[in-house]
Amino acid sequence: MSRFWSALIQRLAPYTPGEQPRMADLVKLNTNEHPLGPSPRALEAIRADAADSLRLYPDPRATALREALAAYHGVLPDQVFVGNGSDEVLAHAFAALLKQKEPLLFPDITYSFYPVYCRLFDITFQIVPLDAAMAVNIADYRRRAGAIILANPNAPTGTALPRARIAELLDEHADIPVVIDEAYVDFGAESAVPLVASHPNLLVVHTLSKSRALAGLRVGYAIGDAALIEALNRVKDSFNSYPLGRLAQAGAIAAIKDEAWFQQARDYVISGREQLSNGLAQLGFEVLPSAANFVFARHPKHDGKVLAARLRERAIVVRHFDTPRIADYLRITVGSRVQIDKLLAALKELLGAAAGSPAAR
Amino acid sequence: MSRFWSALIQRLAPYTPGEQPRMADLVKLNTNEHPLGPSPRALEAIRADAADSLRLYPDPRATALREALAAYHGVLPDQVFVGNGSDEVLAHAFAALLKQKEPLLFPDITYSFYPVYCRLFDITFQIVPLDAAMAVNIADYRRRAGAIILANPNAPTGTALPRARIAELLDEHADIPVVIDEAYVDFGAESAVPLVASHPNLLVVHTLSKSRALAGLRVGYAIGDAALIEALNRVKDSFNSYPLGRLAQAGAIAAIKDEAWFQQARDYVISGREQLSNGLAQLGFEVLPSAANFVFARHPKHDGKVLAARLRERAIVVRHFDTPRIADYLRITVGSRVQIDKLLAALKELLGAAAGSPAAR
Repeated sequence: MSRFWSALIQRLAPYTPGEQPRMADLVKLNTNEHPLGPSPRALEAIRADAADSLRLYPDPRATALREALAAYHGVLPDQVFVGNGSDEVLAHAFAALLKQKEPLLFPDITYSFYPVYCRLFDITFQIVPLDAAMAVNIADYRRRAGAIILANPNAPTGTALPRARIAELLDEHADIPVVIDEAYVDFGAESAVPLVASHPNLLVVHTLSKSRALAGLRVGYAIGDAALIEALNRVKDSFNSYPLGRLAQAGAIAAIKDEAWFQQARDYVISGREQLSNGLAQLGFEVLPSAANFVFARHPKHDGKVLAARLRERAIVVRHFDTPRIADYLRITVGSRVQIDKLLAALKELLGAAAGSPAAR
Repeated sequence: MSRFWSALIQRLAPYTPGEQPRMADLVKLNTNEHPLGPSPRALEAIRADAADSLRLYPDPRATALREALAAYHGVLPDQVFVGNGSDEVLAHAFAALLKQKEPLLFPDITYSFYPVYCRLFDITFQIVPLDAAMAVNIADYRRRAGAIILANPNAPTGTALPRARIAELLDEHADIPVVIDEAYVDFGAESAVPLVASHPNLLVVHTLSKSRALAGLRVGYAIGDAALIEALNRVKDSFNSYPLGRLAQAGAIAAIKDEAWFQQARDYVISGREQLSNGLAQLGFEVLPSAANFVFARHPKHDGKVLAARLRERAIVVRHFDTPRIADYLRITVGSRVQIDKLLAALKELLGAAAGSPAAR
């Protein structure tokens, strides 16, 4: 507390990002980064733009990037908004669209940044519990609401709704804004982007941090009706005219255009996910069906927090949430083949050693 | 208007950044970019970081960059906050520090983003007119206030207060936060950073867009008491955990450490400013004394708006503000020697041609 702080500071409950430890030979499976490096064409475009032109401001509207994204998704450039990572895009969406008189709805178990934004922007929200299978049931959203946000696939569970369910949700709530956060959609779920044309209340949020392996570049975007995009632009132009630097714009354009890299990198993660899920199941874990680049799993006999700590001692970092309903679970990023092997070997050893010890239960 | 917009959108009055025209052979003197390319070491660091490691998130706290900035300014890393350009740093400062019960004070003629932030965050503000010489007079700030923000050097006027005046202001308002926006300070004004040690109410905001020639990279920062920095961190961690990508952090570190480049690039701009100011004075312009990388000038016989339009026809873009008190003025960035020569030649021709024409008055 300081006498110089605004009243806002006291109501905040800041988000805690997954840690970025600086350890040598770390098996880093805690923040859902891609196991492969990004498109070489993206790296080339960035290097080419690391030039004297960096003295100049970037295009504040990122026109070329929005055009590339529009072409990729089959929409118009005016239906695309870009920002400094999807977290910034989400922040603007919370301020511009999700703050309504009636409460915003989202699941109890989902991206833990959503309630943080609600505190920042003083948004009333209501939590809708996932069903017993840890899945979103759209019937549970049939209640008075000002707006809805869902992550699809959901995080940290990894489970996804088919597009037809999202369409139903949109139809049932045609009079309020609905944001679908598709950070992980490329790893095997159906995108809601084709629904934008018929649903003016839909905003779909994507990121280049996951399926494009560009977490270090900070580019996210949203697709929706031009009126929703205009709302985001108004907030953006009241906050920071130039959210994306020249290198981010150049790298993102090249990444979006490199379809060959995208397909093979996605296939690599999807087959790695099968390997990881099967390996965990063989060790006795219950693994939720994942459409993302991570799996969410618990062992009926072992405490999630203890397992995460034991793995960390072996320089393997996974994410554990000390939160009701999911405290038993580990969220494990689909790493490289070598990383998956190391993780499974370490778990096998830990579970064996722990048999009969206090870590078992 | 859209029925899906939050109430916020209606109260916004977004900022209009200086245009970034896409014209060939443009003499671009409208957004105060540096005439030289950035430090080659910064470009090298960026190219080295355009690698597979871009798949990983950046350090959310930008520890190495904050350490480099702290060493450069002789403060502690906990006294440094970094953001996605100084516009983002300012936005967080408005939310975290400048929103108080009593009104925020700033000049009538200053960075036009300040009232935009006030609308975004619903901050009450009071305008304090510049004096007759278009300068800030700190005696005018002796009134009931919740916070103060001053740009020093001021923009678009370019005039600066000495550090002793800033110290007086801080002493007279020791119980409220005071932000000094030093975007242009390196071109010849005295920084308030040495006052941070003795003034817990002071936050100083800098950018790498101007004197480091990195407008395209998007890096800004603030220096102040650790409690003020903590307030900014709380807002940042409620908005976007990773505001600065890996390339921005790497490039900024290298730029800050390249003192030789910095000194010679600054000298180049300062001597260019003398040339530009003298040339304008010879053409009959009144030129305000500038401590920035631009000059603010008006011609007693020629309309600023008309001159700006005529220059634009010749592919020379300067900034004109259609605003009371300064509508006569042009804000002209100190460009390269060639650009300065082109501008002065064009003005000479325009003023000659206009003698006796309706553009003269």
